[in-house]
Amino acid sequence: MPHPLADRPHHDGSPLYLSDPAPTLGGQVRVRVRVPHAFGEVVSVRTRSNPDREPRFTSAQPVHDDGRAVWWEAELEVENPVHGYRFLLELADGATWWLTSAGLSHVETRDIDDFRLSTHTPPPAWGADSVMYQIFPDRFARSAAADARELPDWAEPAAWSDPVDQDRRHTAVQFYGGDLPGVVEHLDHLEALGVNLLYLTPVFPARSNHRYDALSFDHVDPLLGGDEALVALVEAAHARGMRVIGDLTSNHSGDGHEWFRASHRNPGAPESGFYLWLDEHQETYVSWLGVPSLPKFDWRAVELRRRFIDGPDSVVAKWLGAPFDLDGWRIDVANMTGRWRDEDLNEEVRRTIRRTMESVDADTLLLGESTNDAAADFPGDAWHGAMTYANFTRPLWNWLSVPGSPAGGGLGMTLGRTADYSGRDFYAAHREFAAAFPWRSRLHTMNALDTHDTPRFRNSAREGCVPVAVGLAMTMPGIPVVWAGDEFGLTGDDGEHSRTPLPWDRLEESAETIGLYRRLIGLRRDHPVLSRGGIRWLVAEDDAVAFVRESAEECLLVVASRAIALLELGEELPDDAEVIAAEAGGLSVAASEGRLALPGPTFAVWRLPGVAVPAFG
Amino acid sequence: MPHPLADRPHHDGSPLYLSDPAPTLGGQVRVRVRVPHAFGEVVSVRTRSNPDREPRFTSAQPVHDDGRAVWWEAELEVENPVHGYRFLLELADGATWWLTSAGLSHVETRDIDDFRLSTHTPPPAWGADSVMYQIFPDRFARSAAADARELPDWAEPAAWSDPVDQDRRHTAVQFYGGDLPGVVEHLDHLEALGVNLLYLTPVFPARSNHRYDALSFDHVDPLLGGDEALVALVEAAHARGMRVIGDLTSNHSGDGHEWFRASHRNPGAPESGFYLWLDEHQETYVSWLGVPSLPKFDWRAVELRRRFIDGPDSVVAKWLGAPFDLDGWRIDVANMTGRWRDEDLNEEVRRTIRRTMESVDADTLLLGESTNDAAADFPGDAWHGAMTYANFTRPLWNWLSVPGSPAGGGLGMTLGRTADYSGRDFYAAHREFAAAFPWRSRLHTMNALDTHDTPRFRNSAREGCVPVAVGLAMTMPGIPVVWAGDEFGLTGDDGEHSRTPLPWDRLEESAETIGLYRRLIGLRRDHPVLSRGGIRWLVAEDDAVAFVRESAEECLLVVASRAIALLELGEELPDDAEVIAAEAGGLSVAASEGRLALPGPTFAVWRLPGVAVPAFG
Repeated sequence: MPHPLADRPHHDGSPLYLSDPAPTLGGQVRVRVRVPHAFGEVVSVRTRSNPDREPRFTSAQPVHDDGRAVWWEAELEVENPVHGYRFLLELADGATWWLTSAGLSHVETRDIDDFRLSTHTPPPAWGADSVMYQIFPDRFARSAAADARELPDWAEPAAWSDPVDQDRRHTAVQFYGGDLPGVVEHLDHLEALGVNLLYLTPVFPARSNHRYDALSFDHVDPLLGGDEALVALVEAAHARGMRVIGDLTSNHSGDGHEWFRASHRNPGAPESGFYLWLDEHQETYVSWLGVPSLPKFDWRAVELRRRFIDGPDSVVAKWLGAPFDLDGWRIDVANMTGRWRDEDLNEEVRRTIRRTMESVDADTLLLGESTNDAAADFPGDAWHGAMTYANFTRPLWNWLSVPGSPAGGGLGMTLGRTADYSGRDFYAAHREFAAAFPWRSRLHTMNALDTHDTPRFRNSAREGCVPVAVGLAMTMPGIPVVWAGDEFGLTGDDGEHSRTPLPWDRLEESAETIGLYRRLIGLRRDHPVLSRGGIRWLVAEDDAVAFVRESAEECLLVVASRAIALLELGEELPDDAEVIAAEAGGLSVAASEGRLALPGPTFAVWRLPGVAVPAFG
Repeated sequence: MPHPLADRPHHDGSPLYLSDPAPTLGGQVRVRVRVPHAFGEVVSVRTRSNPDREPRFTSAQPVHDDGRAVWWEAELEVENPVHGYRFLLELADGATWWLTSAGLSHVETRDIDDFRLSTHTPPPAWGADSVMYQIFPDRFARSAAADARELPDWAEPAAWSDPVDQDRRHTAVQFYGGDLPGVVEHLDHLEALGVNLLYLTPVFPARSNHRYDALSFDHVDPLLGGDEALVALVEAAHARGMRVIGDLTSNHSGDGHEWFRASHRNPGAPESGFYLWLDEHQETYVSWLGVPSLPKFDWRAVELRRRFIDGPDSVVAKWLGAPFDLDGWRIDVANMTGRWRDEDLNEEVRRTIRRTMESVDADTLLLGESTNDAAADFPGDAWHGAMTYANFTRPLWNWLSVPGSPAGGGLGMTLGRTADYSGRDFYAAHREFAAAFPWRSRLHTMNALDTHDTPRFRNSAREGCVPVAVGLAMTMPGIPVVWAGDEFGLTGDDGEHSRTPLPWDRLEESAETIGLYRRLIGLRRDHPVLSRGGIRWLVAEDDAVAFVRESAEECLLVVASRAIALLELGEELPDDAEVIAAEAGGLSVAASEGRLALPGPTFAVWRLPGVAVPAFG
């Protein structure tokens, strides 16, 4: 590839490059490409669309020269619900280059690499502006009311200061007694941190501390404070400008669920069609990864759909309406939902869930868990974004961790340990897995350093690299995620161990890390360009990456390095640019004529003027 | 990428690497990877499957060391109808590498790059052994009987020696009067050439010489000799061991079709649902690329399905049964079929077509036209292979043509002219577009240098490169295609012009080119490994490529170059290897210690010993 990153043509789905973020089927949109002068003398730019899988071309015209680049503009007709397109650039020397969502290519590229427009209903207006805080209720905070509650047989009580038991026989039943009033008691902390979206892992009654083995979806677990506690929490959060989403398992229930108990070994039950039985007596059944306590739903069952996901009386609807007023759902194991052997009802199920949500309250967010290559299920027809690790989390760990660090559990890391990625690899893997998302799905996809299913990033981070990682989560496209406890500097060896009770008695000792989070969350929230602006990559080297987030209003230059590095940013970094964030070792040396010397791991952001291009006509 | 091609681990779907080419859903298969010693010290090999889109791993064991490579073997359970899998190799130094259908990768790769097993009904046993000869009936040969036929109004008669009229007003109606008895008269030529599969472009009555605007699917055009002529042709071909497939347009009919005439402007007609009307009076309608003479079918219509594709009374069925006994279909515009706006019935339509074919005669072949990125529609559920240009034809043109040669028409070449590909680009583009096909779809995908829709390759070939191109068509996985007339050395500027009447009076003058085709077709047919063996790439340089086709029975080394080149093949080319094909300028210099000097454009093949690995247990 003869062209340095910064010299390559660029397009993305942000307002600088696309006239309409919510196009309609059969409508017209205008698209732009920025072509740096340094790319060469471009004599033509065409779009290639692929309606009904047959290519169609339109011609672009140059509409602006900003001194460093020429902006070309073309019109497209949006002919399919998900409309793929790419660009073809012709140079004066006869060379041709394809520009796709996966990058620049001399040889033809596959349809999967196309940029994508989605004509489906767009996400709620607030979605992309969210900074998410993930709460695992048993471990977040315990209110005084918890002392009075009688524990069920399965629970093995633990004191808040007890270590997490890593023995597999106890991990799921060790019970700390965190509850929803406990969350309300610490909203000050969350508000001060700056987060504005709380994601609660399941709150329904179950037989485990994680509650992914629901016994019912009809009421909130009394051990968490019951329905009233959820109402109180959502009200209190809303009063502070925070939204709250819940967590549903559409792939399976617990084997203690009322539907399963009614139908197991009982072929006549109304719920008989709800599960995938393996024998006529309904004795054996399909379960999540073969775990018998998690029987898998059979989504061919119309009555299951009616009760769970379809229409105003469904579970999906109930919790979004009064008095609960949840602001959306994160769906567990969305990738496997409705899929088994030769059956694939995933699209039907996810679209039904979203249709129901829109009928109750369209101003809600729907995220789907799909921890690997998620894009195929995310054309914008239902899930607004993914909880996935392939496009951000794993590439980040592989670049910013000590290579070979243990990294097991749900993180899905190759061989259970971190690999040795260069910054180029980080960029390549990120781009590879982000490419097939429509732009707006990228904006709503979770950028998590870690979650309740993974070890904590701090465990394996290279020295000085936690601020770099947090900085990238806050500045790359996607919803930044704070997994409760990261701001206290907690560690955790795996998904179980990282569910450490939050050390509320260590708030002061944790002030430095909490401060880091506050500053970087504040950066994100103060600059809308970080939520919705375009991203144009400038540098991807062994030890450093750099990109700009751009809009007509503002432009931020982001630099992240894991070690000492010298970057040549040229005109992208004028000497008078203002540093607005500087974390870790960096920034004792300022820019000089576009060169930047970083003395060690660095995360830094400069404010540049917004991009002055004519508005779309 | 630190590893030369020849040192990389390899897997494909051929019998050396996969225990069962037709696995069943829920069944087990064994897969093998060949890991050259030169790749490094491998400490583990795992498979990654992705059932229900959730990764699952199995471990491989080394089962054989052939002196140059270690063969690892693992077991897989086939959990979905199309089962994706890849390999993960761990080296002693801790590095990990993914091996996918798209190649070797240090960073994680996308699901689309997985190798694929298809549990759908496999293609007919003879499919992959075919060498196809494509016949455009109006231009192949004219029997004496043609003189007696009265021409319809639309036809503009031409003498056989007249040049093809390239004026758009005449191209579709210039009528030479070739017919099916004319084909019968020249079966000696085809048999001598060595082809064993005839593909006839449409034979139904129409209002053009190409007949893609069918008036009816009920009888063969009397201008071609009518039904009896088709019966006679198929019988005569079968008697010589050749099969014959027809051509159907599932995307559209002609506007003169009986179904269209019955329903156009006639909302009450039984055929009203057959087309995509744009107004309630059925005046305006959707058509192929907006060409009004080609109205597009609406596949929601059950009655259309019944008449055309579904069941024993359908058009699809009729021509495969007695007395016609066609051996299969090539489906025109398969990519657009059933797709329009927010409707996508493509999968339903193609599966219905195949189901009907299997109900009449399962020993039939079904190919679908999809000239660009075809793989998504080819999971092995219906189309056995693709008529496509993205994985072979265009990469080949771009490597072996004079860069910038005019190459318009249906070839789909970027900007209507050839690009400047290196041999590396040829390999990369081929691999890119072949990767997502299941192996058996690759074996049935057409390797055409050109077709009735494209210019002829000879027009733009670099000097000496026609034999190189023909050699690659005959030796790469896929069904080689001879577009009628290529063996005469015909040229053609575009898809219209390449439909030149065959110069039967120039058989002797064309002896050299006909000889080239005979030799290379003979090579293909004499060596089953070229039809069904694995392909392992050794070299992809600017001017040369080399690969081996391998099975337990035989192994052929194939070298192709466009210019002078020196190849280092090492142990892959022992000094005593026997040259069994040598075309173009090459092979005055034989191999010496694995080095091969090619004095100019070369196509050459060596026979090596078969691969001696233990059989699958």
